[in-house]
Amino acid sequence: MKGYVLEGKNSALWKDDLPMPKAGPGEVVIKPVIVSPCTSDVHILETMAFPFMKGKALGHEAAGLVHEAGPGVKDFKPGDRVAVPSSIMNWKVPAVQEGYDKYESLSPYLNPDPRLQGCFAEYYLVMDADLNLAHIPDTVSWEQAVMVTDMATTAFEGVQHLELKYGDTVVVYGIGPVGLMALCAAVLQGAGRIFGIGSRQVCFDLAREYGASACINYRDGNVVEQVLEKNGGPVDAVIVCGGQNIGAVADAMKMVRPGGTVTNVAVFMHDKEFVLPNEIWGYGALDKTLRSVSARGGRAYMERLMALIEFGRFYPEKMATHVYRGMEHIPEALEKMGGKDRSAIKPVVFF
Amino acid sequence: MKGYVLEGKNSALWKDDLPMPKAGPGEVVIKPVIVSPCTSDVHILETMAFPFMKGKALGHEAAGLVHEAGPGVKDFKPGDRVAVPSSIMNWKVPAVQEGYDKYESLSPYLNPDPRLQGCFAEYYLVMDADLNLAHIPDTVSWEQAVMVTDMATTAFEGVQHLELKYGDTVVVYGIGPVGLMALCAAVLQGAGRIFGIGSRQVCFDLAREYGASACINYRDGNVVEQVLEKNGGPVDAVIVCGGQNIGAVADAMKMVRPGGTVTNVAVFMHDKEFVLPNEIWGYGALDKTLRSVSARGGRAYMERLMALIEFGRFYPEKMATHVYRGMEHIPEALEKMGGKDRSAIKPVVFF
Amino acid sequence: MKGYVLEGKNSALWKDDLPMPKAGPGEVVIKPVIVSPCTSDVHILETMAFPFMKGKALGHEAAGLVHEAGPGVKDFKPGDRVAVPSSIMNWKVPAVQEGYDKYESLSPYLNPDPRLQGCFAEYYLVMDADLNLAHIPDTVSWEQAVMVTDMATTAFEGVQHLELKYGDTVVVYGIGPVGLMALCAAVLQGAGRIFGIGSRQVCFDLAREYGASACINYRDGNVVEQVLEKNGGPVDAVIVCGGQNIGAVADAMKMVRPGGTVTNVAVFMHDKEFVLPNEIWGYGALDKTLRSVSARGGRAYMERLMALIEFGRFYPEKMATHVYRGMEHIPEALEKMGGKDRSAIKPVVFF
Amino acid sequence: MKGYVLEGKNSALWKDDLPMPKAGPGEVVIKPVIVSPCTSDVHILETMAFPFMKGKALGHEAAGLVHEAGPGVKDFKPGDRVAVPSSIMNWKVPAVQEGYDKYESLSPYLNPDPRLQGCFAEYYLVMDADLNLAHIPDTVSWEQAVMVTDMATTAFEGVQHLELKYGDTVVVYGIGPVGLMALCAAVLQGAGRIFGIGSRQVCFDLAREYGASACINYRDGNVVEQVLEKNGGPVDAVIVCGGQNIGAVADAMKMVRPGGTVTNVAVFMHDKEFVLPNEIWGYGALDKTLRSVSARGGRAYMERLMALIEFGRFYPEKMATHVYRGMEHIPEALEKMGGKDRSAIKPVVFF
Repeated sequence: MKGYVLEGKNSALWKDDLPMPKAGPGEVVIKPVIVSPCTSDVHILETMAFPFMKGKALGHEAAGLVHEAGPGVKDFKPGDRVAVPSSIMNWKVPAVQEGYDKYESLSPYLNPDPRLQGCFAEYYLVMDADLNLAHIPDTVSWEQAVMVTDMATTAFEGVQHLELKYGDTVVVYGIGPVGLMALCAAVLQGAGRIFGIGSRQVCFDLAREYGASACINYRDGNVVEQVLEKNGGPVDAVIVCGGQNIGAVADAMKMVRPGGTVTNVAVFMHDKEFVLPNEIWGYGALDKTLRSVSARGGRAYMERLMALIEFGRFYPEKMATHVYRGMEHIPEALEKMGGKDRSAIKPVVFF
Repeated sequence: MKGYVLEGKNSALWKDDLPMPKAGPGEVVIKPVIVSPCTSDVHILETMAFPFMKGKALGHEAAGLVHEAGPGVKDFKPGDRVAVPSSIMNWKVPAVQEGYDKYESLSPYLNPDPRLQGCFAEYYLVMDADLNLAHIPDTVSWEQAVMVTDMATTAFEGVQHLELKYGDTVVVYGIGPVGLMALCAAVLQGAGRIFGIGSRQVCFDLAREYGASACINYRDGNVVEQVLEKNGGPVDAVIVCGGQNIGAVADAMKMVRPGGTVTNVAVFMHDKEFVLPNEIWGYGALDKTLRSVSARGGRAYMERLMALIEFGRFYPEKMATHVYRGMEHIPEALEKMGGKDRSAIKPVVFF
Repeated sequence: MKGYVLEGKNSALWKDDLPMPKAGPGEVVIKPVIVSPCTSDVHILETMAFPFMKGKALGHEAAGLVHEAGPGVKDFKPGDRVAVPSSIMNWKVPAVQEGYDKYESLSPYLNPDPRLQGCFAEYYLVMDADLNLAHIPDTVSWEQAVMVTDMATTAFEGVQHLELKYGDTVVVYGIGPVGLMALCAAVLQGAGRIFGIGSRQVCFDLAREYGASACINYRDGNVVEQVLEKNGGPVDAVIVCGGQNIGAVADAMKMVRPGGTVTNVAVFMHDKEFVLPNEIWGYGALDKTLRSVSARGGRAYMERLMALIEFGRFYPEKMATHVYRGMEHIPEALEKMGGKDRSAIKPVVFF
Repeated sequence: MKGYVLEGKNSALWKDDLPMPKAGPGEVVIKPVIVSPCTSDVHILETMAFPFMKGKALGHEAAGLVHEAGPGVKDFKPGDRVAVPSSIMNWKVPAVQEGYDKYESLSPYLNPDPRLQGCFAEYYLVMDADLNLAHIPDTVSWEQAVMVTDMATTAFEGVQHLELKYGDTVVVYGIGPVGLMALCAAVLQGAGRIFGIGSRQVCFDLAREYGASACINYRDGNVVEQVLEKNGGPVDAVIVCGGQNIGAVADAMKMVRPGGTVTNVAVFMHDKEFVLPNEIWGYGALDKTLRSVSARGGRAYMERLMALIEFGRFYPEKMATHVYRGMEHIPEALEKMGGKDRSAIKPVVFF
């Protein structure tokens, strides 16, 4: 079986002799139909930040067909169209009963089990399938489905934690693919004015289509000043989806009003410290909330977001600026995601 | 001064000699530019259900210009474009500090003060103006503004109390003007599939435009059965905005799943009792929530909804099926609202 | 193996030849150390309301020792002290990811599987043990632990759904064992004044010790009038834990203020209809919330309540008015629970 | 009229010729019966951090008698026993309709109006009395009432924002008077195990009486390590009520589990920056919430906390380690609060 395997820092290569996975109890083998590279894949490749990935096929955003369903799998059978969340969890821990599901990952990059591989392969295994896989409704396309697996699950969760009220003014800091999904989520949570911060024209255009009221180019000057001026004062909420460094979160805290909320869904792995000028939050007493948020996993959440697409609430497929046919294009797509092509939002690869 | 005054059951008439109101401390005199009759107006006229209205000008949905601002009014001056909420409250009571504002009304139908009149008059008085009036943004039209004063404040509040999650399936029971606004609100709170229940084609058409996934005609048979069949089971949430009688709320409880929520924003004044088959909610233990909800008042809420219009999140002016010019058309508009013309959703009258 | 088995209406008898249960994958066999009869047991016996119970050992409140742990059980081993919730659930369904766990019961009265029996037996089986059983801390006694399994899980969940604010005035309607636990929960959720409604002196005494500010005897007259008079007006919240019939819930709606909440945790199986005078909730618009609530299951919740006992936040063992030694006393304890002895709150039986 | 007036840095002195205040519309003149100095008073005196205080009488924690009620005051009359919140607000701004009340202060230290003075005077003025003053129930003592005005309103608000679940493990970081009130609040919000961090024996003793499960002395070593070791891992929630510097908040973030919450109610005016090691919150993605919280003002909230005292839910008067008779003891009490006497928690002065 063929796959694109991480060998070491800046080194990934095609292998033809990966062992064909076999579905054990509760497990499913997926045959990917569409995958999408993520900036995290690029990052893992460049830094080896997740050592468990060494020797495994890369990739964590995929939709495909059920190839084999192991014993005890109830709700999925061969041939089913399914989307696979980037965060695959063990749902059989008590923490889940309290709404927190991040204690035991079944994703290849957080779990050393060699049976767990990424989706840049002809086939790959998903454990605890009944609780992790999501059915794709007939009217939802492959391009739409793959966008849910990480981009939407991350962004929608981050926006939900903003606890918006009708008409709130929201800043989406960083309008790459996660930020664009955050724009859609903000509209669907009742935001009024929405600012999108970025620099690429292709993103600005889609941001406006998705509901941004105004776009701010960080190359035009200090973003805090730009937001305060355009809004005539601080905003109700900010979601940080990107930025040069963790300073983006401090910027967000500067833009937000007393009583407001900032969520951060970006991962700033190059920064050792988060530094916040103390007066920004009234020396610790100015009623500002800051939340770090990671993607929500689970079948139920994925199927909820899929329902939003099914009923026309948002159109994530518009982010697929580059569509490749053939899994051999994965390296090319990864390079696109690397960021040098300013016309790219999110490439997808059909197998 | 001229006004359309309630004399008694089924009796309202034009008077020319109403006293011109005078703005006292914190008060404002409004010159209506646009008004809209409400089914409540029709109801008050037919039943005298609100005895305080006797001898007062009718009407409680208006937008207009500030004619006179009394001493101490800070944020409004003559000439300002303003919308007036149907629920005018005294905000100087401690309950307000806890989010509940219904204890002391400054609306003419709930307060005996003869200085408080309805908006079907050349001028009328609003007390506690800084906290009750809402500025209308330049880009929001008169037709849009008047729809916020009661239809949207009622519907959006009812939907908010559904506490929806992304992708929830929602039923809007009764798609008159409040129900149509509830459809918009449900979309803006993350609903997936939305059913609208009604019987008029004009409402079905606008419901679909506003985001209804499917419309159900109560003339086609039992609505509970229709919903359960089309949805393949119970729904997550129901908002009751209308119906023949309080049985609509029992219907809603039948449609909703265990763990789900029903809000009611309709007023069923003809029913003595609400009767719920006990097995519907598991003899009292099936985790169903039922909330009776009234319109939310206050300047802040109105300005929030106005911001949603300003930034293109919903388009309430499409409900204005009949636009009259001249206050003399009020009786005609009231008749339209009375319900016999099946092409009417919501008439408005420009003065 | 010996057990007290339901044969039919008003007929239960000891059997000596019940098959010894065997723990399958993920399952545990419990050897009860302490059990407590519940009014539901009495009710099941009198009415056969749960037909799945026919031929099974009765009982659903127990704490005991792990006798055998099946393959795959991770967190429990023979000899562990454990409490078993009255609601045993299948946690491997997606609904659980959303906080709702009532879709698939693994309790003997809601699941036809003959392997599932009640706890009035020398041994019995619990499925999905890692997610359903709770460890008992060393400093928590058997009497305390058994009170958590149903009385506390029901009452604490009902009170939590009242969404109390500091200092709220709360009515606990029915101060049997569930109501007494609700009193403790209300204190631990920040209630100020708390009224307890009942008729037995033994309950009044413990209610005051648990934090009731005043007790109301329903034999002294209309309870709504008594509450309104003693409180000087309507209250913020009511939890219904008992009552003659479903009219208790209508009473609760009458006592509660606009904007307030009523939860019901009682099960009124003899009533066909719930009837609410329509004016009580403003003909459907007076901002009152009514929730039917069932016991929360799951290991995490049980262990949370056990932590409250461990750190001295409440003392449920005081409800154990009658302590029997020997499982042969179960019929006697059931009779006590039947209600004729007015000195009984909750009997327990040590095996 | 006599008062203890701030002249400049480290300089306060008695004046005999302060003008007697006169109650205007909606205003009340208070005659203090009991006052308590706060560390903020000490701080203001040492640093002149609030320049508006120059030339005004110091003090912001008081309970007393209504001396004069101005025109339009509805709910208070001369002779009424009242408590005055440390945060006096203008409640006539729309933000209040949304639950946020910090936009316009009527407290002397945040408002330049010279009519607004502190409570270390024979009489002083409170504006917007109906919405800011709280009635003291007959059974609540003066010592109890004065503890509510700042210590309890700050601590209870901070704990409420922890959004605790039953049985949560909570750390109170800093068990001076605010921290001790936070302990009471944590118990009344359902906390299980509670750790108190401090260094004084007098505080440890009262902390245990108020419900602390264990006390940690920061002089015994690194507090993060002590908490992690004693708890066997990270805790669910931390409220920071004190500490050497803003590093206490970083400590709190280290102690708290993924998915947990930290609130800070302390004011760290000497620190320029808040610095958080980035890995502590997973480089921005580890689901930790950090909230800066200030005291909640308003009559409704004060009366809620007073109800908790009235019904025996907590006993704040136990913090009054030093009781002075005669307003001339204010400087002595201030010195006690300055921190050198390790037997002091909170001094109070009867006039």
